[in-house]
Amino acid sequence: MRYAPITERLANLGSDKWAVHFAGRARAAQGEEIIELSIGAPDVPIDPGLIAACTQALEAGRTGYADGRGEAGLRTAIARHYANRSGRAITADNVLCLPGTQTALFTTMTGLATAGDEVLVGDPLYAAYDGIIRSTGADKVSVPLKAAHGFRMQPEDLAAAITPRSRVLLLNSPHNPTGAVLSAGDIAALGEICIRHDLWIISDEVYEHFLFDGTFASPFDNPALAERTVVVSSISKSHSAPGFRSGWVVGPKEFCARLQPVSETMLFGSQPFIADMTAWALTHDSDTARRQREACARRVRIVCDVIGNEPAVRPLPPAAGMHILLDISATGLSAEAFAWGLLDDEKVCTMPGTSFGAAGEGFIRVSLTSPDDLIAEASRRIARFARSIASSGRGT
Amino acid sequence: MRYAPITERLANLGSDKWAVHFAGRARAAQGEEIIELSIGAPDVPIDPGLIAACTQALEAGRTGYADGRGEAGLRTAIARHYANRSGRAITADNVLCLPGTQTALFTTMTGLATAGDEVLVGDPLYAAYDGIIRSTGADKVSVPLKAAHGFRMQPEDLAAAITPRSRVLLLNSPHNPTGAVLSAGDIAALGEICIRHDLWIISDEVYEHFLFDGTFASPFDNPALAERTVVVSSISKSHSAPGFRSGWVVGPKEFCARLQPVSETMLFGSQPFIADMTAWALTHDSDTARRQREACARRVRIVCDVIGNEPAVRPLPPAAGMHILLDISATGLSAEAFAWGLLDDEKVCTMPGTSFGAAGEGFIRVSLTSPDDLIAEASRRIARFARSIASSGRGT
Repeated sequence: MRYAPITERLANLGSDKWAVHFAGRARAAQGEEIIELSIGAPDVPIDPGLIAACTQALEAGRTGYADGRGEAGLRTAIARHYANRSGRAITADNVLCLPGTQTALFTTMTGLATAGDEVLVGDPLYAAYDGIIRSTGADKVSVPLKAAHGFRMQPEDLAAAITPRSRVLLLNSPHNPTGAVLSAGDIAALGEICIRHDLWIISDEVYEHFLFDGTFASPFDNPALAERTVVVSSISKSHSAPGFRSGWVVGPKEFCARLQPVSETMLFGSQPFIADMTAWALTHDSDTARRQREACARRVRIVCDVIGNEPAVRPLPPAAGMHILLDISATGLSAEAFAWGLLDDEKVCTMPGTSFGAAGEGFIRVSLTSPDDLIAEASRRIARFARSIASSGRGT
Repeated sequence: MRYAPITERLANLGSDKWAVHFAGRARAAQGEEIIELSIGAPDVPIDPGLIAACTQALEAGRTGYADGRGEAGLRTAIARHYANRSGRAITADNVLCLPGTQTALFTTMTGLATAGDEVLVGDPLYAAYDGIIRSTGADKVSVPLKAAHGFRMQPEDLAAAITPRSRVLLLNSPHNPTGAVLSAGDIAALGEICIRHDLWIISDEVYEHFLFDGTFASPFDNPALAERTVVVSSISKSHSAPGFRSGWVVGPKEFCARLQPVSETMLFGSQPFIADMTAWALTHDSDTARRQREACARRVRIVCDVIGNEPAVRPLPPAAGMHILLDISATGLSAEAFAWGLLDDEKVCTMPGTSFGAAGEGFIRVSLTSPDDLIAEASRRIARFARSIASSGRGT
């Protein structure tokens, strides 16, 4: 039987990148004691208020068909956050609700890029971006993010990657996997190039509330960039609620009007009771994000304390987020080889940096969403493994 | 700013078709007493057991990331239904869970058809199919469904519509808006043509449990067609649970393996607590579908009792589903003009048949999901309106 070309474009996307992770899971399922630091699922428990709000909405009969744009109350609650942040008159007409950041990105990219277009994105990049870009038929063009610049995208690197086919710049700040945070100045400089070349900016802001210090900045809050910026985000990280699949896009009104039929054709609306819960979450104070952020910051310090003085592995403390990169290039092993060896020898499951793009070579990504003692133990094992490589000469 | 061509293909899709419905809603919001029979949201209440199952799963912490294919327990429960039905060894590997039939259709069509392909579908057709086909860039090719054949697709009409570009036949039995049900013999005859031309069959079976009499038949249950058939369905109608957005595709294992990356790129999984609720729904007896079916059958009789002897309007009793078509061609009005006039003069909101395709001309669709007394009152008003047209000569 014949399939559409999208199935070819997306074939084998996941399996390579996640091979170490899935191997770790498989070994754990067979009884091995694996420390899994490969993915970043929030470990601060969800606020019971969210469960109560969801249950209440369920029992109140909020189980019928929804407004295809998202329920009005939720869109208003989302709009208020961005109005406060940007100081502009953002309303429900600037918002579409979608089931999670992934779908928000997929829908947005589908509405903005197509075969023949190029989408610019930093490398390393969040592993799902490849599929989202490829699904549209557009080509990914990598803009190298360099450790020497703290992995913040440099205007000259963006400018060098632009061609007449460029249509979209996909930004992610705070950034996964590097934890880099763009300043308002960084964004203005990148934005100038986007204006010059008439590019859209898609701004993935799921880690908005996870800066260890400093101030969050968004192209959406820059008046010169607002007409070309679409924000995607969700409550998955901020409220430890990934399984609710509750996200949104915020952008120009014309963008939302144009994307609404795309969203409705894909989804025919979402769950009203989850919309009510999300509106509750966005209009009540919660310490979930603060607790998660503080836990991650503390675990960054733990990693740095344990392996900060190792000769063969060097932590690169992130400015935000739920992950830390370790530079393992001094071991002489590739990122893949290091991650596999670490899993085999020390039963610690991490992500090779190359799962996040070619620029991830020489790094592994360690998630910070496990208890402190496990992070400390894993750090000791990572250090021991790196030393064993150095002394055995395996990496040379 | 520039958008991708999909936004052009889907522009204005909804607004025309639903104009009468939205006008009815707007008038009701302004205080007019409108009888809304334009959409078919189930009116039998949801089984409290489903709400309890959902709440229990929420409180048990089933709020983390899900398996991108759908939770294993739910896939197994779905597989069991199709194994029982088909008598074949259907397993969880034949199933992908998706948020509702709409998304199941969108994902399936995305995986099977692309620009340059043709998708065959009966006309009249469920209003959302147009957008689903157009979203892929493929062209819709209508196969006329004729009242003279009880709106059941005829093999010769299908054969006449096939070209070298044909890739998919989209079937819907029981059918919305006509209520037609294909027999196993009908399906075998249509299927032979699909085999000859190597076509996929997408079988939208949301009304599986709504036959007033006779036996449900599916191309998936026909061994000769199984390798080329994908079923899409959900609990929206069967369990009065449209707002849970819980649906699935069932098809060949290769199809599921190929579509999984498409689904994961779009969605990154669904809600585990909704999966648990759905598994509960599919493994416990429920009388929701039976009650809804009996209510709809009773309301068909009410409509026929009230307007069965009218000269200008003729009910076409459906074999299944939640709607009835009325032939209003004898009034001389177009379907649009009749539906607007009925809303204006009698405050009854229905769908013009042309919202479901060109072959819907001469019909209006009346939903059967309102209380019996409202259906009776609406029927009297429809009869009165048809008579007023006849006597005024407005339709000539």
